[in-house]
Amino acid sequence: MAVKPLGDRILVKPVEEEEEKIGGIIIPDTAKEKPQEGEIVAVGPGKMLESGERQAMSVKVGDKILYGKYSSTEIKYGGEEYLIMREDDILAVIED
Amino acid sequence: MAVKPLGDRILVKPVEEEEEKIGGIIIPDTAKEKPQEGEIVAVGPGKMLESGERQAMSVKVGDKILYGKYSSTEIKYGGEEYLIMREDDILAVIED
Amino acid sequence: MAVKPLGDRILVKPVEEEEEKIGGIIIPDTAKEKPQEGEIVAVGPGKMLESGERQAMSVKVGDKILYGKYSSTEIKYGGEEYLIMREDDILAVIED
Amino acid sequence: MAVKPLGDRILVKPVEEEEEKIGGIIIPDTAKEKPQEGEIVAVGPGKMLESGERQAMSVKVGDKILYGKYSSTEIKYGGEEYLIMREDDILAVIED
Amino acid sequence: MAVKPLGDRILVKPVEEEEEKIGGIIIPDTAKEKPQEGEIVAVGPGKMLESGERQAMSVKVGDKILYGKYSSTEIKYGGEEYLIMREDDILAVIED
Amino acid sequence: MAVKPLGDRILVKPVEEEEEKIGGIIIPDTAKEKPQEGEIVAVGPGKMLESGERQAMSVKVGDKILYGKYSSTEIKYGGEEYLIMREDDILAVIED
Amino acid sequence: MAVKPLGDRILVKPVEEEEEKIGGIIIPDTAKEKPQEGEIVAVGPGKMLESGERQAMSVKVGDKILYGKYSSTEIKYGGEEYLIMREDDILAVIED
Repeated sequence: MAVKPLGDRILVKPVEEEEEKIGGIIIPDTAKEKPQEGEIVAVGPGKMLESGERQAMSVKVGDKILYGKYSSTEIKYGGEEYLIMREDDILAVIED
Repeated sequence: MAVKPLGDRILVKPVEEEEEKIGGIIIPDTAKEKPQEGEIVAVGPGKMLESGERQAMSVKVGDKILYGKYSSTEIKYGGEEYLIMREDDILAVIED
Repeated sequence: MAVKPLGDRILVKPVEEEEEKIGGIIIPDTAKEKPQEGEIVAVGPGKMLESGERQAMSVKVGDKILYGKYSSTEIKYGGEEYLIMREDDILAVIED
Repeated sequence: MAVKPLGDRILVKPVEEEEEKIGGIIIPDTAKEKPQEGEIVAVGPGKMLESGERQAMSVKVGDKILYGKYSSTEIKYGGEEYLIMREDDILAVIED
Repeated sequence: MAVKPLGDRILVKPVEEEEEKIGGIIIPDTAKEKPQEGEIVAVGPGKMLESGERQAMSVKVGDKILYGKYSSTEIKYGGEEYLIMREDDILAVIED
Repeated sequence: MAVKPLGDRILVKPVEEEEEKIGGIIIPDTAKEKPQEGEIVAVGPGKMLESGERQAMSVKVGDKILYGKYSSTEIKYGGEEYLIMREDDILAVIED
Repeated sequence: MAVKPLGDRILVKPVEEEEEKIGGIIIPDTAKEKPQEGEIVAVGPGKMLESGERQAMSVKVGDKILYGKYSSTEIKYGGEEYLIMREDDILAVIED
């Protein structure tokens, strides 16, 4: 991934809602809420502290996460949509 | 529980209001206020301090808690509804 | 009391306004302002400091207090109404 | 005075505006602005610092003070009206 | 001056706009903007620091100052109008 | 570049949207969103810390960046449009 | 310059837009935007730190600067218009 988040930010690929097919025709489910689940595709180096050191990130690439609806910025890159948010805006990690 | 809250967040299962049955028919009590009581099902590792250490959580899985109405985020997971909130948003623990 | 406030919170039983009786019939005085006076029924362990220690509370169970109208959360417990507020939201203690 | 302010709060008795008498009849001057002058009747123990010590108060009982209009809470006690405010909300002390 | 500002506050006498006289009749110039210039008539002891010491004030009685329009509180004392503001709200000192 | 950003600010040249040509006539695409991508053309010396030292910048001249829409100030210099923003307002660096 | 800015403030003379002359008649260009460029004519002694020392200013008298539209206070002095702003509100210094 060529997009490197700065500081304590992470880059997230939102989980796409599955479209229902009725008789082979794709019915986009526009009524569904925007996804709150995604997978981390890049992590920043961590928050710069007053001491000049960086605070270690507690998530890593590949983590599946839950996040709030209004805490991220949407970006388009390579024709795909991603979200950039701060580590503190991640609510939880989903483990298998 | 496969949902791991981050930082000083906790995952809460709200106590469901009991539905009244009249002659065997379930009458959902929609007039009732949203519950402010729940049970903790997962706790985060604690708030990261400037020193790099984490502050110990003062609640644990299984605790029954009271919380404010507007201080949590609703999530759906495995067909169930949960709340994620910060430890500081818990008002009190209910002991038996 | 089975409700344990967290951090620097306290649980308060508001002083109930006396109802006037006219000829034995109770006349609830709905025009009166919401009480700003109450008695502390439970106190939290104190605010957690950065050092990991807790700041001692300066009020105790049984204290009669004055508090602002908009600084507390109402809860119902055991059929009774209580308020939960932070110690800093107490304006003054009333001594006999 | 049985009302003990907490922290860096003070209890103030606002200076009452003198009513004008015309031919012996008291004419309450309702058009006048709310007083911004008062006398301190009780002081709190001082603001609790992170170190656990309290910061000394720089005003004392009996001080006549000027204060802003919107920085205090009105309370009624013993049939009298008082204001509770933080020491930082006092603008100045009036000396004779 | 019997008004002693608290903390890092100062007491300021706004510079009065000169009234124009036409044929001996005073024409108050009500269209003019409220003055932003004044003279310091009293200074507080300085801001109390966490250490318990006070930060020295960088202005003194007699200084002519410029200040913003919305950063002060108007008070009346001895029939005169004054402003009370914090030292940080002074924009500049005017030197002759 | 003769424009030297102060503190932790950077100067950014937004990436210009390509104009479509139809039959050799340039059709400015005014419907497109304002770009969120740019190249850094100057960086400040870093944020001044309480200790008097400056925090090192983590981006450099030539870096291609993504930034939020509302976190920068537009300036015109030498007939060209630039953006000035704080380092913390950069979302990510794009690497080739 | 007899106006001495306090703390980390600076005094700025905005660059005046050149008026166009058509046939010798001055045409004030009222449609132009308010200038965002100016020259520093006085600097304060620097921000007072908690330690009692002052943080050195990173700009000096004579510096040509760019600044945001809404971060300064306009003052009139000696018939001329100036701006007072904090050092942190300067976006960049323009070098020749």
